[in-house]
Parts: sequence; structure tokens; C-alpha cells
Amino acid sequence: MSAAAPTVEAVVAAAGSHVPRLMAQVEERLTALAGGHGPLLSRHAGDTIAAGGKRLRPLLLIVSAGEAAPGERVAAAAAAVELVHSATLVHDDVLDDAALRRGRPTVLATAGRAMATATGDLLFSRAFAELARGGDAADLRILSSAASDLARGELLQRADAWDAEISEARYRLRCELKTARLFQAACRLGARLGPGVAAEEALDEFGRRIGLAFQLLDDVLDVSGPPERTGKTRGTDLLDGTVTLPLIRARRRDPALARLNLRSVRDPTRAQEVCEAIAATGALDEVRTAALELVRDAKAQLPQLGPAQCRALHLVADGVVERYR
Amino acid sequence: MSAAAPTVEAVVAAAGSHVPRLMAQVEERLTALAGGHGPLLSRHAGDTIAAGGKRLRPLLLIVSAGEAAPGERVAAAAAAVELVHSATLVHDDVLDDAALRRGRPTVLATAGRAMATATGDLLFSRAFAELARGGDAADLRILSSAASDLARGELLQRADAWDAEISEARYRLRCELKTARLFQAACRLGARLGPGVAAEEALDEFGRRIGLAFQLLDDVLDVSGPPERTGKTRGTDLLDGTVTLPLIRARRRDPALARLNLRSVRDPTRAQEVCEAIAATGALDEVRTAALELVRDAKAQLPQLGPAQCRALHLVADGVVERYR
Repeated sequence: MSAAAPTVEAVVAAAGSHVPRLMAQVEERLTALAGGHGPLLSRHAGDTIAAGGKRLRPLLLIVSAGEAAPGERVAAAAAAVELVHSATLVHDDVLDDAALRRGRPTVLATAGRAMATATGDLLFSRAFAELARGGDAADLRILSSAASDLARGELLQRADAWDAEISEARYRLRCELKTARLFQAACRLGARLGPGVAAEEALDEFGRRIGLAFQLLDDVLDVSGPPERTGKTRGTDLLDGTVTLPLIRARRRDPALARLNLRSVRDPTRAQEVCEAIAATGALDEVRTAALELVRDAKAQLPQLGPAQCRALHLVADGVVERYR
Repeated sequence: MSAAAPTVEAVVAAAGSHVPRLMAQVEERLTALAGGHGPLLSRHAGDTIAAGGKRLRPLLLIVSAGEAAPGERVAAAAAAVELVHSATLVHDDVLDDAALRRGRPTVLATAGRAMATATGDLLFSRAFAELARGGDAADLRILSSAASDLARGELLQRADAWDAEISEARYRLRCELKTARLFQAACRLGARLGPGVAAEEALDEFGRRIGLAFQLLDDVLDVSGPPERTGKTRGTDLLDGTVTLPLIRARRRDPALARLNLRSVRDPTRAQEVCEAIAATGALDEVRTAALELVRDAKAQLPQLGPAQCRALHLVADGVVERYR
């Protein structure tokens, strides 16, 4: 693993001694929150939180706050952001009827739709409760606006499903809402706890670009696989009618793809064939390049911060795209 | 309609001139919030909010705050509480696979599970955003704790489904979490905006009793019907395995009911027969009496407030139980 493509674990270790310490505090809080509501929740929410992945959003918040920020409040806000993300994952699995998430059974699969919906609601509520412990009303406005936008993005995605003609602008809007907003909220909340108001806008914009890049690369990965790295089957987006940038771009180059009726893609074998066709157009490289440009711009336009904090933010930006290289 | 059994509309009109004014402001806010997120949301969330019923929770908040409280903040907090309630309704319909709510098609029925889950999430997020506009972090803690408890209550109900042996204590706990907590939050938030900290505990307790009474009577109504008043079929609780106090009490009196396997109650005709059997034991009157006692105690133990506010709180307490008489 080169310095240009660090794992998230390596980023955590390299971004300053406060980062692993606060990330550990976030884990403690998440575990306590999941365990503090009876055995049912600790099973389902615990599983979800454990399967939640790389904790990119808490990490972004912690590095945006920087070393001088009050650790307790930073950890609480970071846990809150991750709880919103976890709630969304649980509900997304309900929406998608998904049996697996990162190779593990979903709450939906182990406990059913009712439990999954209620578990998501609970994680959602705990997010605001956690932030309200130390945050002010403005912090809560930031998180609740981001959570609203996540849901709006989800609604948009459902409304657009199976429509191969959706524009790139529409796709971007959906990515802004569904993914970038929570990255932005993480960075903005961090800024408010650390470098302060002067850095808020710039760190928000940093988060937006990193979030968009993350989504673009995620959409590439759904087409390119391999499943053993992504924990899900190739072409899941195609199978649930979600049109992403690789397909939008590939349709311009391949008339057969432009004519494709998405509803005819009904099984994983056919989805895999379409993935191959998309990859053959070169669209994946195009999207990957666009994502890397977003990350490059994000790094280039950081506000005036100390060199250690800038270095940490650069590391995180690279860490976000690491798994796609 | 006698003075002892007023409609909610009559309560609103009688509880002081600020009450209809603030209730109208709440409606405006809810309409604006539902309309402010694109046509999709305005359709689905608008329908849900419109079908949301009698606005008991905002009404409780407004009368708990009293006439001297700042109207703008009271209306915002009242809208926030109603949004949490609406979000819960949308998700409950997903959980229950419900096609109708108060005689109108649910979001689930008109737009599908995915839209309904996301619409609920959005209403939920908007609730916190609305409260964060004027409220402080302590207000947000109160609402987010109540929202967590609602979800815990839902989880509990799912975990207990089909278990006819559940205790009365367990049933009460579920009612506390699923229903009373949001009534309590409404009263407490009102107290904080109006009479202040000294009245918080007592108004919280008032809300708890009213909320419990409301749930007990709702559970009676599910057994007693008639559907044209409730907007849903008799025995829906039985059909989804939810054991309520009427059945718990009736099982003690009727050995046939005590032996009943809930999973054998599979269609509305059979559910109606079981409802008749429960009613025949006299359990409904018992539960109704318990509820009315809760309301009586709630009214008797109000804190020291002005006579106009006390009268308004009494009216609301009576209004909550009106539809069951």
C-alpha cells in the first residue's frame, strides 16, 4: 500500500495522535448507544453499526475539527453523524430488500422489515439525541437538514428508477443529496468545533467534493466489481433500476446500451453482461477520472489551516478513494 | 355534543383565543414543510399530514405553554411534535402493510414501500430541523428521546407479537414508549416555553396519563369498532399479532380465549368473532374505566397554573377521550 493510497486505518494512524483516540471514543459511544436499549436493539443496531464500514464520516468530522477542538464534543458529533448514516443503511436495505451488506446479513434479513424499519428510526433518533448532548441548536439544524436531504435523495432515486434517460444533472443532484450532504455536515460540524466559522464554508465544500467523489467511485465499483471487494453482487444498481453515471456515459458511446430497456435486466447474469458492456465503452475510466479530479480540487482548495490539519485532511481525501485504485 | 364530551374542534375554540390562532399556524407550517421539498414529497407527505387526525399533540403543547408563551416558538415546537407523529404513522403503515389510514390510502399503498420509508425519514428529519429553528439543545434532547422511545416501543411490539402470554406490565411499558412519551414531550416542551421549569415535571406527568388513556381507548376501539368511526377494520391488532389490554383482561375471564392460538386468527371474520368474545367478558368496560381514571387523575394533579390554562388543559384531557364515549 503506497503513501498515495493509504487504508483508512493507516489514515487514522497517520493523521495525528488525537485521531485514533477520538475514533476509539466514537466506537465506544456507538457501542454504548447500541447496547443501551435492550437486547433487541443491541443485536440489530449492534450488527448494523459493526457492519457500518470505514467510519469515513466521523473521520472527516474529527480531522475537520483538528487537534485543538474539545474531544468530548467532537466524538459526540462524530458518533451522531455515523448514527444518521447507519440509520440510512438500515432503511436502504429495507427499500432494496437487501439480504447482505458488506457480506453480512442485513437487519432486514435477520429480523424482518418491521424490526429493520424501527431499528433505523431508533438509530436516527439516537443521532439527534447524541448531538443534542453537547451541540447547540445550529449544530442540530445542520444535521437535521443533512438527514432531510438524504431522504429527499432517496425519494428522487426511487422516482427516477428504471428511467434510462435521466440527465447527468439529475444524477448529480441525487448524489449531492444522498451522499455529499452528510459528508458536508460532518466537515461543517467539525469546523464549528475546531477552526471556527471562518473555515465552515470551505470545509463544507471540501466535504461536498469528497462525498461526490465517493459516490461516483461507488457507482463505478458497482459496475466493475469484483464482489469480493465490494461485498455485493456486480450490477445491483441495474437490477433495482438505479441509473448511475457509468451507464449515462456509456449510453452515449454504445447504441445497444442506449436502446437497452432497463426492465429487461432481471437476473445477475444479464446484469453482469450489461456491466461488461458499460466497462467496454471506457465510461468507467471517465467517471473514475472525474472523481479523482474532485478529490484533487478538494485538496487544493482547503482554507488556511495548520500544516498538520491540512496533511490530515489530504490523507482522508486520499483514503476515501483508496479502495478504488 | 355535551360540554363533558367536546370534539377537538370545540376544545380548540374554547381553550382560549390563542389556541385556534396557534393551531392555524401549526397547519401553515406543516403545509409549508410538506410543500417545500418538491412535488413528490408534497404529494406523499401532504397526504400523510392531512390524514394525521386531530392534532392532539400540538394541541397539548399549545395548552401546556399557555397564552403568555412566545407564539412563534410554540407553533414551531408543536409542528415538530406533529411531524414526529406523522413520520411514525408512515413507518407504522410500512410495518403493518396497511392500505388505509383513517379511511384514506396510505403512502405505502399509493407509492410503495420505498417511498413510504423515505417519506417517513424525511418527516422525521424535518421535525428536528423545525425544532432546531427556535428551540435549544435541551428541547431537542426531549424530542429526540421521545422519538427513540417511540421506536423502542415499536421494536417491543414486534418482539412481543403473537405472544398471548405477555404481562400487563409489559403491555403498559409498550404503551408508555409507543404513545405516552410523545404526549409527555409535547407537554414538557410546552411547559418550557410557558409556565417554565417549575411546571415541567407535572405537565410531563399530565401528558403521560393522557397518552396512556389515549392508547388504552384506542385498543378498546380496535375491539369494539365500529369501523366507520375508527377508519379501520375491527380486530386489526389481533390480525397482526398485537396483544392489548382488552385481550389480556378477557383471557382471565374466558378460558376459550385463554386457550386461543393467536396465529389461528387469520381473517377479518375470525378476528371479528374474537372481538365479540372479548367484548362479552366485560373487559372493554374495565379498560375504558381504567382510561377514564387516568384522565381524571391527570386533571386532578395539575400544577399551579392560571385558571384559564387549567380549564384549557381539562378541556383537552376530555377531548382526548371524547371519541370513545
